[in-house]
Amino acid sequence: MPETHAHRRHALRDQLRERDLDAMLVTDLLNIRYLTGFTGSNAALVVHAADEPGTESRTVFCTDGRYLIQAGAQVPDLERVIERPSDLALAERIGADAAGHRRVGFESQHVTVDGRDVLAAAAGEAELVRAPGLVEQLRLIKDETEIDALRMACAAADRALADLIAHGGLRPGRTELEVARELETRMLDHGAAGPSFETIVAAGANSAVPHHRPTDAVLAAGDFVKMDFGALVDGYHSDMTRTVVLGKAADWQREIYELVRASQAAGRAALAVDTDVKAVDTAARKVIEDAGYGEQFLHGLGHGVGLEIHEAPALSQRGDGRIGAGMAVTVEPGVYLAGQGGVRIEDTLVVRPSTPELLTLTTKELVEV
Amino acid sequence: MPETHAHRRHALRDQLRERDLDAMLVTDLLNIRYLTGFTGSNAALVVHAADEPGTESRTVFCTDGRYLIQAGAQVPDLERVIERPSDLALAERIGADAAGHRRVGFESQHVTVDGRDVLAAAAGEAELVRAPGLVEQLRLIKDETEIDALRMACAAADRALADLIAHGGLRPGRTELEVARELETRMLDHGAAGPSFETIVAAGANSAVPHHRPTDAVLAAGDFVKMDFGALVDGYHSDMTRTVVLGKAADWQREIYELVRASQAAGRAALAVDTDVKAVDTAARKVIEDAGYGEQFLHGLGHGVGLEIHEAPALSQRGDGRIGAGMAVTVEPGVYLAGQGGVRIEDTLVVRPSTPELLTLTTKELVEV
Repeated sequence: MPETHAHRRHALRDQLRERDLDAMLVTDLLNIRYLTGFTGSNAALVVHAADEPGTESRTVFCTDGRYLIQAGAQVPDLERVIERPSDLALAERIGADAAGHRRVGFESQHVTVDGRDVLAAAAGEAELVRAPGLVEQLRLIKDETEIDALRMACAAADRALADLIAHGGLRPGRTELEVARELETRMLDHGAAGPSFETIVAAGANSAVPHHRPTDAVLAAGDFVKMDFGALVDGYHSDMTRTVVLGKAADWQREIYELVRASQAAGRAALAVDTDVKAVDTAARKVIEDAGYGEQFLHGLGHGVGLEIHEAPALSQRGDGRIGAGMAVTVEPGVYLAGQGGVRIEDTLVVRPSTPELLTLTTKELVEV
Repeated sequence: MPETHAHRRHALRDQLRERDLDAMLVTDLLNIRYLTGFTGSNAALVVHAADEPGTESRTVFCTDGRYLIQAGAQVPDLERVIERPSDLALAERIGADAAGHRRVGFESQHVTVDGRDVLAAAAGEAELVRAPGLVEQLRLIKDETEIDALRMACAAADRALADLIAHGGLRPGRTELEVARELETRMLDHGAAGPSFETIVAAGANSAVPHHRPTDAVLAAGDFVKMDFGALVDGYHSDMTRTVVLGKAADWQREIYELVRASQAAGRAALAVDTDVKAVDTAARKVIEDAGYGEQFLHGLGHGVGLEIHEAPALSQRGDGRIGAGMAVTVEPGVYLAGQGGVRIEDTLVVRPSTPELLTLTTKELVEV
């Protein structure tokens, strides 16, 4: 949808004008994808502040010969330069029209120290000005195109887990790795381009390790099985954790499960527009602390998701800023009893003016498989 | 093997002394893995030039709490600081002992413009000096530990392709995506941690697209099927391309296949110590040019492989430098007839003082499946 990308570029222009920048040299591939729809592995983009949507005559996209046809299909609405290295080619064009590019922003949070010097030399009289995080600031609030992709990514994960359980994939005797591979294959069956990160399957005592990598450990009756996984659809990442019990839950398992579930519900309920991100973490954390398990909840409550699996905002005591409508975030408290077992429950949600929209729909009731 | 890593750190110290650097702040995760064996997703390392192997009292490793146990197991031979952000924590330590760290190299090819400022502020009186590519320079020549990992990665790919063919996985009616997924699953069965890059399976006219992504396109009798894939083992990447014919090869297919095969053999034969990398490319390219297909060989001849799927040296007309014993490289010429079909044949090899060692062992005879 070229209109979507034109709209995003125009939002960036507002930021450029505020900072008295004539243009922005965008070199981060995810930011370029966001602004143009291009999905190749090499590109650069100059967004000129003076352009208008529909007549973007000074905004230029660059990639190399491998992507000639793809660029024509994905970026039909911009002038396309085919050259490599692409960032250098555009810096030279900027230098060749320094009068029209007095001050050009660059992504100082992505460009390396050595890379900046090469670009600055090519830009000649045009001044390269640090302008970190401008596109990321736009990406913080998802538009409906992005939310559609996130919804599909979450659906692929939901369906994969449902299929896994329906086909008896969770049973004593299987290994963590086998379960992880089946989840990933089933996500592909439901339209995922791949897993959105390395799938976590952790059984028994391993479930107490927050980021356990699946091993040949065998699932046994009575185990917690914690599964943290997600799908990649159209470049967007879903993220979900569910923890089930193989067979009948013991009392201690039920106790910490219900505690984490209450904490997660409190975190979701706190996701209101204008709330400080720290307060969202606090709302969920307090439930676990009040029950005496504060020391066993070792990580932040959640994070933004989108073109990256971890992006702003951080829902944690180290996070900064306030919740806004259109943010896509995870809410994922956990309690981990070392050597015994742990529970994490995680959803991906979109903040809405009223109640957040839940994208991961799998039940959060305690499931005994 | 801590000795291997200690040996690599000591080789780095030689470079530091040559540049009058007291220490090096290493922040690139692959370089840290190379120098310590650590495989986590966050770390920093200071290698002090004055240390000796066995008594590295001023060389410090840092990661965060998630990796406390892992760091103890993987980096038992260095002082370990647990703090986050790790690069900043080590920069502060450098600043606290500025007298012992007058000039400290940093990886200016990896550290961002904004990141450098944060580190420099923390380092205080210690001067941060650009020192790009020092560890990469060491990584150019593989030691036997690395070659063992590459050999296993190549073997996993060889076996996956043999299994695929033996089990009838290449047949009319299957889709490119199905074949790609089966290759990837079979590599996992043979010990790969994952594919080393996005598997390419390209059938029929799609085989003329050098970097075709597999689709739902159906394999048909008479098609070329080009498969470019590799396995990841212990962090090392294999890379192999084979092109087969479904059924009996037509004359034009046999002609370009044998041409590419002769070109690939010429490229391998040119891989001698001290040869200019451009000359290796030329040796293979000349075979294709002489047959009148020079315009259909659109890319460089090959590239280094190791902890990255593409690393130095580039075997192409844009490459620089000379071949050295212990380099691991690909040799992968191709001829692509748009709309009709294409052939690429690629091996991964290690340069040796005499003949290069072939790591990908699958036959390069024309296979008619």
